[in-house]
Amino acid sequence: LLFYNPTLESLRLLELSEEESWHAVKVLRLGKGATFQITDGRGGLAQARIIEPHAKKCIVQLTDFKRIESGKNYSIHLAVALPKSSERIDWLIEKCVEIGIEQLSFVLTDHSERQKLNTERLMKKALAAMKQSLQLRLPQFNTGIGLKDFVNKCTDQERFIAHVDEGNEVTLFKSAAKAQNYCILIGPEGDFSKEEVALAIEKGFRKVSLGRNRLRVETAALAACLALQLLNE
Amino acid sequence: LLFYNPTLESLRLLELSEEESWHAVKVLRLGKGATFQITDGRGGLAQARIIEPHAKKCIVQLTDFKRIESGKNYSIHLAVALPKSSERIDWLIEKCVEIGIEQLSFVLTDHSERQKLNTERLMKKALAAMKQSLQLRLPQFNTGIGLKDFVNKCTDQERFIAHVDEGNEVTLFKSAAKAQNYCILIGPEGDFSKEEVALAIEKGFRKVSLGRNRLRVETAALAACLALQLLNE
Repeated sequence: LLFYNPTLESLRLLELSEEESWHAVKVLRLGKGATFQITDGRGGLAQARIIEPHAKKCIVQLTDFKRIESGKNYSIHLAVALPKSSERIDWLIEKCVEIGIEQLSFVLTDHSERQKLNTERLMKKALAAMKQSLQLRLPQFNTGIGLKDFVNKCTDQERFIAHVDEGNEVTLFKSAAKAQNYCILIGPEGDFSKEEVALAIEKGFRKVSLGRNRLRVETAALAACLALQLLNE
Repeated sequence: LLFYNPTLESLRLLELSEEESWHAVKVLRLGKGATFQITDGRGGLAQARIIEPHAKKCIVQLTDFKRIESGKNYSIHLAVALPKSSERIDWLIEKCVEIGIEQLSFVLTDHSERQKLNTERLMKKALAAMKQSLQLRLPQFNTGIGLKDFVNKCTDQERFIAHVDEGNEVTLFKSAAKAQNYCILIGPEGDFSKEEVALAIEKGFRKVSLGRNRLRVETAALAACLALQLLNE
């Protein structure tokens, strides 16, 4: 049983959001004195005890706040063109939270069909996934940035672009060094434009393959993140 | 553009299924003389030319049949408890086809909530995914088998069960040898029963972890298959 509030630390009393109040009091039927855990999505965890089981403004008392280190010596920043369907976007968000990556950027590319993302829906999906998988961390989300801007500003140590030319068959798994801050760029169904690839290369991104299969955008994104985790675990 | 017929080899003329006829003639508006590729889902590929563009019984002429080898020296057999929702089952089928595994068995376990699978829907999803990802191979599907039966009959060389006890933290990736026929068992949300784990061990399955995250059934299944592919590619 895990709840979420972004500003846990240093609080003694907390009013749950309307949605979480409803969930606690009406759905789970938790009453006065019931206890559960609550996270700030950044590794912070506290014990909560219900003081006032109000269905819209449930008040809890917080104790034993602690920050739990991830224990990782690397980080994964996934930068991906928006998949076409909302379903596939939802799915990707869920999986990124579940496997625990550090940053997820949805970038606009020359061949992206979809340009807009409902960020409220994004957060809703992410929170649900975090609770379900008992993660204490949410990825940092970035949306609405163009690919060119993105590669200009990206400061992660090891930068990759999933793009295969003739005779360039080195995989991400074999190409990446251990214990780095990685950024991996995944293009849209219609692939990156030549200009985008050229600019990324100029900015220090290395071309890598994700294996021999033709993968959908969201599958490629997940496969890339899992490969980097396997390399490091 | 890829079509499917399970009995391609040795045919000169072929009548497409009602669904594929409709797709070719009505949706894609292909006429007499139009050409496309057609696979048997087992690595066979032929060129097809429309002779009679009938919307329900489209007749094509087949030429240049060839069998394309997978080039793999290993195989993956995923045996997984049925996820609860049809959506997640659909998703898992799609991903298994997309990344190209050899066998997918849905097994019934002591703690499986769901027992029934719509096999027509399964094939529909699998075919759609095969065409989308231009795969020439479908996994072999097995459904409705109990876990105990399954482990008794399983003959794959390297057999694993995704199950973590205290002090058993070896990952699938580190545990598996290269170039084998693998079987990996993934349990339901409520995990395997103790008896199931004991029986699997008795039958030569080795306990492995899939990493430090708590993953949903279908995510764990995909992560396991991708780890085995990375090990071999």
